[in-house]
Amino acid sequence: MKILITGGAGFLGQRLARELLVRGEVKGVDGQPQTITELVLLDVVPASGFTDKRVRVETGDIAERSVLERLIDSETSVIFHLAAIVSGQAEADFDLGMRINLDASRVLLEACRARGHRPRVVFTSSVAVYGGDMPEVVQNDTALNPQSSYGTQKAIAELLLNDYTRRGFVDGRIMRLPTISVRPGKPNAAASSFASGIIREPLNGETSVCPVAGSTRVWLLSPRRAIASLIAGLELDAALFGMQRALNLPGISVSVDEMVDALREVAGDEVAKRVEWKMDPRIDKLVTSWPGAWDTTRAERLGLVGERSFADVIRSYIEDEHIQVR
Amino acid sequence: MKILITGGAGFLGQRLARELLVRGEVKGVDGQPQTITELVLLDVVPASGFTDKRVRVETGDIAERSVLERLIDSETSVIFHLAAIVSGQAEADFDLGMRINLDASRVLLEACRARGHRPRVVFTSSVAVYGGDMPEVVQNDTALNPQSSYGTQKAIAELLLNDYTRRGFVDGRIMRLPTISVRPGKPNAAASSFASGIIREPLNGETSVCPVAGSTRVWLLSPRRAIASLIAGLELDAALFGMQRALNLPGISVSVDEMVDALREVAGDEVAKRVEWKMDPRIDKLVTSWPGAWDTTRAERLGLVGERSFADVIRSYIEDEHIQVR
Repeated sequence: MKILITGGAGFLGQRLARELLVRGEVKGVDGQPQTITELVLLDVVPASGFTDKRVRVETGDIAERSVLERLIDSETSVIFHLAAIVSGQAEADFDLGMRINLDASRVLLEACRARGHRPRVVFTSSVAVYGGDMPEVVQNDTALNPQSSYGTQKAIAELLLNDYTRRGFVDGRIMRLPTISVRPGKPNAAASSFASGIIREPLNGETSVCPVAGSTRVWLLSPRRAIASLIAGLELDAALFGMQRALNLPGISVSVDEMVDALREVAGDEVAKRVEWKMDPRIDKLVTSWPGAWDTTRAERLGLVGERSFADVIRSYIEDEHIQVR
Repeated sequence: MKILITGGAGFLGQRLARELLVRGEVKGVDGQPQTITELVLLDVVPASGFTDKRVRVETGDIAERSVLERLIDSETSVIFHLAAIVSGQAEADFDLGMRINLDASRVLLEACRARGHRPRVVFTSSVAVYGGDMPEVVQNDTALNPQSSYGTQKAIAELLLNDYTRRGFVDGRIMRLPTISVRPGKPNAAASSFASGIIREPLNGETSVCPVAGSTRVWLLSPRRAIASLIAGLELDAALFGMQRALNLPGISVSVDEMVDALREVAGDEVAKRVEWKMDPRIDKLVTSWPGAWDTTRAERLGLVGERSFADVIRSYIEDEHIQVR
């Protein structure tokens, strides 16, 4: 089995690749395990640090038709489509967001359609597809009303994936990810970047500025569970999705104050005190337009589980990233 | 004031044009009446029968960037975007539907954005954006889950219009039309074509084949009310829309059996007997995926009203089209 990961040099892409290499196989559409023979990691910059012979590192612009046409062949039976321009950047550069989050998704679906082999396509969507007037807990049948260009582009790609699936061009699985926390590394241009930064930087002995109010509720998932959910989504029996390929993944609903409390619980008061508060209206506007929680009955019925507490999330970050708390 | 109507040679486009010419003015964004100085009717075929000097008939492919770039200038302060590939045809020819219903809508929005004058854009969406598991009466916050390529393309254009509005590129107003009945003229490739045919043809002394079960519920609006609603939607104060530019227009929920009963009431048993029944699974599948009713509280609060009975709809058709019942 040949697998393609777009955004393969990104944090989730690399982590997903490592997990797939460790597993060595995933379920086929018949539910039987199939050996992974090739793992293509596509991104604008080369994915680094892979020495495994099954890995093929490719670089290219995914909105360029020729790139995906070259990389998707009739052996490419699984595609994880993670490549995206993040929320803050898509808001700042409208055309770039449209090009990567919308046009490239369509190019990818068209490349699959042209091959005619109906690959499974796992697409990462987002909390940002919701917005406007929402119930306190978003339901599976709550209307998408994105209040950001990023959320709009993700919602459009969802609609395309559903229709391409209904028509038999692909076998799509849309995983609506909560905000991923704790991400390792540097802050990025996502409006949600702080949701990792206010944990990661203090643990690293640095201060971190929180740009939203402490009462703001966020809906979080750890990288570990996110990766497990993407693979579980791939392996789900297509028939279980019914008439809607999008799944709201389980997460934890916490206020930012509660996140800092959990940091204090795990790492002590000295660490928690490194969070500073300075409202950024541009970020606050995006983040508070997203739901703070959604109903996860459907995902849980399909066997997808989230974390139990945010303190556990911090502990798994410390463990996974071999953090020495300072 | 210069107004552009795409799909200007279509039934709704022509009727809208006539109504605008009769009125002679529409409200500006300040709520004050403005004189209509030019009415551009764009379509793939020339709109015919207009001798009014304010009318400019244009032909062209609206998916071609140059066509809309030429026709939308900084004086074009109002655009009615009606051009579409209908449901049955968009299902039969996927690429054509994507090109006109999606790509052309985006070209139109981009042409407006490039001008930078933030015109009001009234876009006609459809019952077909709904589908899948729905409540019996669709609510304003019911998720869109289209089960046709047409519905998917309309839902995507809605998302674009909302985001282009939020960003200040246009001032969008999305009117989700019920199935329009009774349309004059010939049957078309819309899956809902029968909803006019089973009234129009019998009144004209001809038999008409109904391709769905008599118990199928449809959500209908007369052409007369549809046109009034499009103009009312244009004239609404933008602030009243809140965070969602789509409006579910009022309609009447009737079963197909009740439609035939109304025909009998208005035109007699001889006429009603001209409806024949022959299930067409392709049409039935599309039509039964659409809602049979939706909640109209929001539209009514904004002053938009529908019909009271389907018999009234038939009577207004007979009157508007000067039908001699045979």
